[in-house]
Amino acid sequence: MYVILVYDIGEKRVGKMLKLCRRYLHWIQNSVFEGEITPVKLKELLAFAKEIMDLEDDSIIVFKSREEKWLDKEVMGKERNELGNFL
Amino acid sequence: MYVILVYDIGEKRVGKMLKLCRRYLHWIQNSVFEGEITPVKLKELLAFAKEIMDLEDDSIIVFKSREEKWLDKEVMGKERNELGNFL
Repeated sequence: MYVILVYDIGEKRVGKMLKLCRRYLHWIQNSVFEGEITPVKLKELLAFAKEIMDLEDDSIIVFKSREEKWLDKEVMGKERNELGNFL
Repeated sequence: MYVILVYDIGEKRVGKMLKLCRRYLHWIQNSVFEGEITPVKLKELLAFAKEIMDLEDDSIIVFKSREEKWLDKEVMGKERNELGNFL
Protein backbone atom coordinates (compact mmCIF):
# COMPACT_ATOMS: atom_id res chain seq x y z
CA MET A 1 0.00 0.00 0.00
CA TYR A 2 0.94 3.65 -0.36
CA VAL A 3 1.43 5.76 2.76
CA ILE A 4 2.18 9.30 3.79
CA LEU A 5 3.82 9.58 7.20
CA VAL A 6 4.18 12.85 9.10
CA TYR A 7 5.77 13.22 12.48
CA ASP A 8 6.07 15.86 15.15
CA ILE A 9 8.93 14.78 17.38
CA GLY A 10 10.91 16.52 20.11
CA GLU A 11 14.27 17.86 18.98
CA LYS A 12 16.24 15.36 21.05
CA ARG A 13 14.58 12.40 19.37
CA VAL A 14 14.11 13.70 15.84
CA GLY A 15 17.46 12.51 14.46
CA LYS A 16 16.75 8.91 15.38
CA MET A 17 13.24 9.12 13.96
CA LEU A 18 14.44 10.58 10.68
CA LYS A 19 16.97 7.79 10.31
CA LEU A 20 14.35 5.16 11.06
CA CYS A 21 11.75 6.50 8.64
CA ARG A 22 14.28 6.81 5.84
CA ARG A 23 14.93 3.09 6.09
CA TYR A 24 11.33 2.46 5.03
CA LEU A 25 10.07 5.47 3.06
CA HIS A 26 11.09 8.39 0.86
CA TRP A 27 11.80 11.63 2.64
CA ILE A 28 9.90 14.41 0.84
CA GLN A 29 9.79 17.28 3.31
CA ASN A 30 11.22 18.17 6.71
CA SER A 31 8.99 15.75 8.63
CA VAL A 32 7.08 14.08 5.79
CA PHE A 33 7.69 10.73 4.14
CA GLU A 34 5.88 8.76 1.48
CA GLY A 35 6.12 5.48 -0.31
CA GLU A 36 4.95 1.97 -0.98
CA ILE A 37 5.15 -0.28 2.05
CA THR A 38 3.61 -3.59 3.08
CA PRO A 39 1.32 -3.67 6.12
CA VAL A 40 3.90 -5.87 7.88
CA LYS A 41 6.75 -3.43 7.24
CA LEU A 42 4.59 -0.51 8.36
CA LYS A 43 3.81 -2.32 11.60
CA GLU A 44 7.53 -2.89 12.10
CA LEU A 45 8.30 0.77 11.41
CA LEU A 46 5.66 1.94 13.90
CA ALA A 47 6.90 -0.49 16.55
CA PHE A 48 10.43 0.93 16.27
CA ALA A 49 9.02 4.46 16.19
CA LYS A 50 7.13 3.84 19.41
CA GLU A 51 10.40 2.99 21.15
CA ILE A 52 11.87 6.33 20.09
CA MET A 53 8.82 8.48 20.82
CA ASP A 54 7.71 10.22 23.96
CA LEU A 55 4.03 9.37 23.57
CA GLU A 56 2.98 12.31 25.76
CA ASP A 57 4.62 14.85 23.50
CA ASP A 58 5.34 13.34 20.11
CA SER A 59 3.03 12.19 17.38
CA ILE A 60 3.01 10.33 14.12
CA ILE A 61 0.15 10.37 11.63
CA VAL A 62 0.01 7.81 8.84
CA PHE A 63 -2.37 8.21 5.89
CA LYS A 64 -2.83 4.97 4.02
CA SER A 65 -4.18 4.41 0.57
CA ARG A 66 -4.49 1.12 -1.25
CA GLU A 67 -3.41 2.79 -4.48
CA GLU A 68 -1.06 5.72 -4.99
CA LYS A 69 -3.09 6.78 -8.03
CA TRP A 70 -5.95 7.78 -5.74
CA LEU A 71 -3.85 10.69 -4.59
CA ASP A 72 -2.59 13.64 -6.58
CA LYS A 73 0.37 15.51 -5.23
CA GLU A 74 1.08 19.19 -5.79
CA VAL A 75 4.34 20.74 -4.60
CA MET A 76 4.89 24.48 -4.24
CA GLY A 77 8.28 25.98 -3.41
CA LYS A 78 11.48 24.15 -2.75
CA GLU A 79 11.45 20.45 -3.56
CA ARG A 80 13.59 18.17 -1.48
CA ASN A 81 16.38 17.02 -3.69
CA GLU A 82 16.68 13.24 -3.91
CA LEU A 83 20.37 13.77 -3.16
CA GLY A 84 19.21 14.73 0.30
CA ASN A 85 18.62 11.05 0.90
CA PHE A 86 22.34 10.44 0.87
CA LEU A 87 23.52 13.31 3.02
CA MET B 1 -12.27 17.05 -2.53
CA TYR B 2 -10.27 15.94 0.46
CA VAL B 3 -6.73 17.24 0.94
CA ILE B 4 -3.77 16.85 3.25
CA LEU B 5 -1.51 19.89 3.32
CA VAL B 6 1.97 19.89 4.86
CA TYR B 7 4.30 22.83 4.99
CA ASP B 8 7.90 23.53 5.84
CA ILE B 9 8.16 27.26 6.36
CA GLY B 10 10.85 29.49 7.83
CA GLU B 11 10.25 30.52 11.43
CA LYS B 12 9.62 34.17 10.56
CA ARG B 13 6.77 33.28 8.21
CA VAL B 14 5.25 30.29 9.94
CA GLY B 15 2.79 32.21 12.10
CA LYS B 16 1.15 33.83 9.09
CA MET B 17 1.01 30.51 7.25
CA LEU B 18 -0.58 28.72 10.19
CA LYS B 19 -3.23 31.39 10.44
CA LEU B 20 -3.93 31.21 6.72
CA CYS B 21 -4.21 27.41 6.56
CA ARG B 22 -6.51 27.32 9.56
CA ARG B 23 -8.96 29.50 7.67
CA TYR B 24 -9.41 26.69 5.14
CA LEU B 25 -8.50 23.37 6.79
CA HIS B 26 -8.30 21.48 10.08
CA TRP B 27 -5.01 21.65 11.89
CA ILE B 28 -4.02 18.11 12.88
CA GLN B 29 -0.32 18.30 13.64
CA ASN B 30 2.40 20.92 13.94
CA SER B 31 2.59 21.61 10.19
CA VAL B 32 -0.15 19.32 8.89
CA PHE B 33 -3.72 20.17 7.87
CA GLU B 34 -6.56 18.18 6.38
CA GLY B 35 -10.08 18.69 5.21
CA GLU B 36 -12.67 18.98 2.51
CA ILE B 37 -12.08 21.90 0.20
CA THR B 38 -13.25 22.88 -3.26
CA PRO B 39 -10.68 23.22 -6.05
CA VAL B 40 -11.44 26.95 -6.20
CA LYS B 41 -10.85 27.46 -2.48
CA LEU B 42 -7.64 25.44 -2.63
CA LYS B 43 -6.40 27.62 -5.47
CA GLU B 44 -7.20 30.67 -3.36
CA LEU B 45 -5.38 29.22 -0.34
CA LEU B 46 -2.28 28.44 -2.41
CA ALA B 47 -2.30 31.90 -3.98
CA PHE B 48 -2.29 33.52 -0.52
CA ALA B 49 0.34 31.00 0.63
CA LYS B 50 2.60 31.94 -2.26
CA GLU B 51 2.57 35.55 -1.08
CA ILE B 52 3.78 34.47 2.37
CA MET B 53 6.39 31.93 1.25
CA ASP B 54 10.00 32.35 0.35
CA LEU B 55 9.92 29.99 -2.62
CA GLU B 56 13.66 29.35 -2.40
CA ASP B 57 13.45 28.00 1.12
CA ASP B 58 9.87 27.09 1.97
CA SER B 59 7.65 24.38 0.63
CA ILE B 60 4.07 23.20 0.68
CA ILE B 61 2.93 19.76 -0.42
CA VAL B 62 -0.75 19.08 -1.04
CA PHE B 63 -2.07 15.54 -1.41
CA LYS B 64 -5.49 15.48 -3.01
CA SER B 65 -8.04 12.73 -3.06
CA ARG B 66 -11.47 12.82 -4.59
CA GLU B 67 -12.86 10.89 -1.64
CA GLU B 68 -11.75 10.94 1.98
CA LYS B 69 -12.77 7.28 2.29
CA TRP B 70 -9.87 6.28 0.03
CA LEU B 71 -7.54 7.16 2.88
CA ASP B 72 -7.19 5.54 6.27
CA LYS B 73 -5.62 7.55 9.02
CA GLU B 74 -3.67 6.13 11.94
CA VAL B 75 -2.45 8.36 14.75
CA MET B 76 0.21 7.36 17.26
CA GLY B 77 1.11 9.51 20.27
CA LYS B 78 -0.34 12.85 21.20
CA GLU B 79 -3.39 13.93 19.24
CA ARG B 80 -3.91 17.59 18.64
CA ASN B 81 -6.78 18.64 20.79
CA GLU B 82 -9.57 20.34 18.85
CA LEU B 83 -9.41 23.01 21.54
CA GLY B 84 -6.05 23.90 20.04
CA ASN B 85 -7.95 25.48 17.19
CA PHE B 86 -9.14 28.22 19.48
CA LEU B 87 -5.92 29.03 21.26
